[in-house]
Amino acid sequence: MQRTELINLIKRKRSLLCVGLDSDITKLPACVMQSEDPIFEFNKAIIDATLPFAVAYKPNLAFYESNGIKGMMSLQKTMAYLNAKSSECFTIADAKRGDIGNTSEQYAKAFLSTEGDFNFDAMTIAPYMGEDSVKPFTIYPNKWVILLALTSNKGATDFQFTEDKAGLRLFENVIIKSQQWATEGNMMFVCGATQATMFKGIRRIAPKHFLLVPGVGAQGGSLEEVCDNGLIDDYGLLINSSRGIIFADKTEDFAKVAAEKAAEIQDEMLNYL
Amino acid sequence: MQRTELINLIKRKRSLLCVGLDSDITKLPACVMQSEDPIFEFNKAIIDATLPFAVAYKPNLAFYESNGIKGMMSLQKTMAYLNAKSSECFTIADAKRGDIGNTSEQYAKAFLSTEGDFNFDAMTIAPYMGEDSVKPFTIYPNKWVILLALTSNKGATDFQFTEDKAGLRLFENVIIKSQQWATEGNMMFVCGATQATMFKGIRRIAPKHFLLVPGVGAQGGSLEEVCDNGLIDDYGLLINSSRGIIFADKTEDFAKVAAEKAAEIQDEMLNYL
Repeated sequence: MQRTELINLIKRKRSLLCVGLDSDITKLPACVMQSEDPIFEFNKAIIDATLPFAVAYKPNLAFYESNGIKGMMSLQKTMAYLNAKSSECFTIADAKRGDIGNTSEQYAKAFLSTEGDFNFDAMTIAPYMGEDSVKPFTIYPNKWVILLALTSNKGATDFQFTEDKAGLRLFENVIIKSQQWATEGNMMFVCGATQATMFKGIRRIAPKHFLLVPGVGAQGGSLEEVCDNGLIDDYGLLINSSRGIIFADKTEDFAKVAAEKAAEIQDEMLNYL
Repeated sequence: MQRTELINLIKRKRSLLCVGLDSDITKLPACVMQSEDPIFEFNKAIIDATLPFAVAYKPNLAFYESNGIKGMMSLQKTMAYLNAKSSECFTIADAKRGDIGNTSEQYAKAFLSTEGDFNFDAMTIAPYMGEDSVKPFTIYPNKWVILLALTSNKGATDFQFTEDKAGLRLFENVIIKSQQWATEGNMMFVCGATQATMFKGIRRIAPKHFLLVPGVGAQGGSLEEVCDNGLIDDYGLLINSSRGIIFADKTEDFAKVAAEKAAEIQDEMLNYL
């Protein structure tokens, strides 16, 4: 999906919402557990229910890989289902990969290639290994690399805030340097909602890039703060909620309640759009 | 595998060699391509041929994921084959994962759990997200986390060498801080052979830890330099070669030639052990 298409999708749906499909099999409602592929059945119901309110879906690969081959087959089916609605949503492989150049090429092929089993629009990447680990994700037309910058977890303070001699923190170095490797048309940054007070500073060094913002909801980030400090003319934000939507209810009404939660967040977003 | 078992394995085989199973399907010898699962057939032949000379095997997951579900099935079969010889070799999932705590738990379950589809001894992890992204990999008994510190690729210079105000480089901060999260009995560090001149400095801050050393062979690192600067009383090194062994020959003799290449490296190691 091109940047202009993504912007139009946000404009049309009046939503910045990304639904995180962190479909942990141990947390699924009992009513889907009898089906042949509970994770896919769950995802399908969640997608159908939330699609009017969401512009993006982000399966975190850990929750699929932890079920081994079966889990990857659930992911494949989920992506086939989402790709059949490709004009309705942007898809993100939350994979946090990154390796030496020739190996990153293989990961890019695995998740971004239109000929592969998954065909995502975008993929999250860890920046630790530098340019040649990131570049292979930038060469697929209309596909995106989403680089970890400032993450939403407690451990973010361990290294991401380390200041260099010029006073720049590591996450700032990542945002600045990586802009030589791609454009705002094929690169985004992960910036956690729990760090929303930092978003003004981030906008000074990345005024045009989309930010993928996890951490609203279960992790405690504030939607208002994120929007106040992060929104730009072209929106520039995809705001993720996972557990707060998909596991809001564990009864047979799970999809209906997920839709209500997604609608609530989208409704709150209208205040800022 | 416990540290003492690994040390005994090295002592018995007189080898530090780790064979990287980077089994790119586009580079396999023609003679395996007719079989039902070419990657597994190739790996099996390579393992059988090199096992006398190698103490560890390291499939890089990118080369399996790039074949989608089929590739993950090849990996599963490869691991079943290796786990049947578990006293003969240490196994490493070169996965470079890392995510927020509850998600890293899922990755750890996927690759380290004895009940999962893979059951590796160890797994490589990217440190960018800090403590809670690493800790879940340290809780499985007799399993190891191998943290990226100083990688072998060109992009290593982009962030890993950034000095903080105290003059410590990022990779040094990673090595120092992460020692609060695990012990030398369940944590190793990735340090590229192309950076072997740095190994003396690394030994000052990690005197007892095993280092997993990629970059000998195709990437140009020197075995002599790595051993001179990195060996300790308990060995403390696993030295990886991938392409230089597994793709040394593309004829029907591929496994025989791989064994010769592995034997050559093991023979050179005898000079330093």
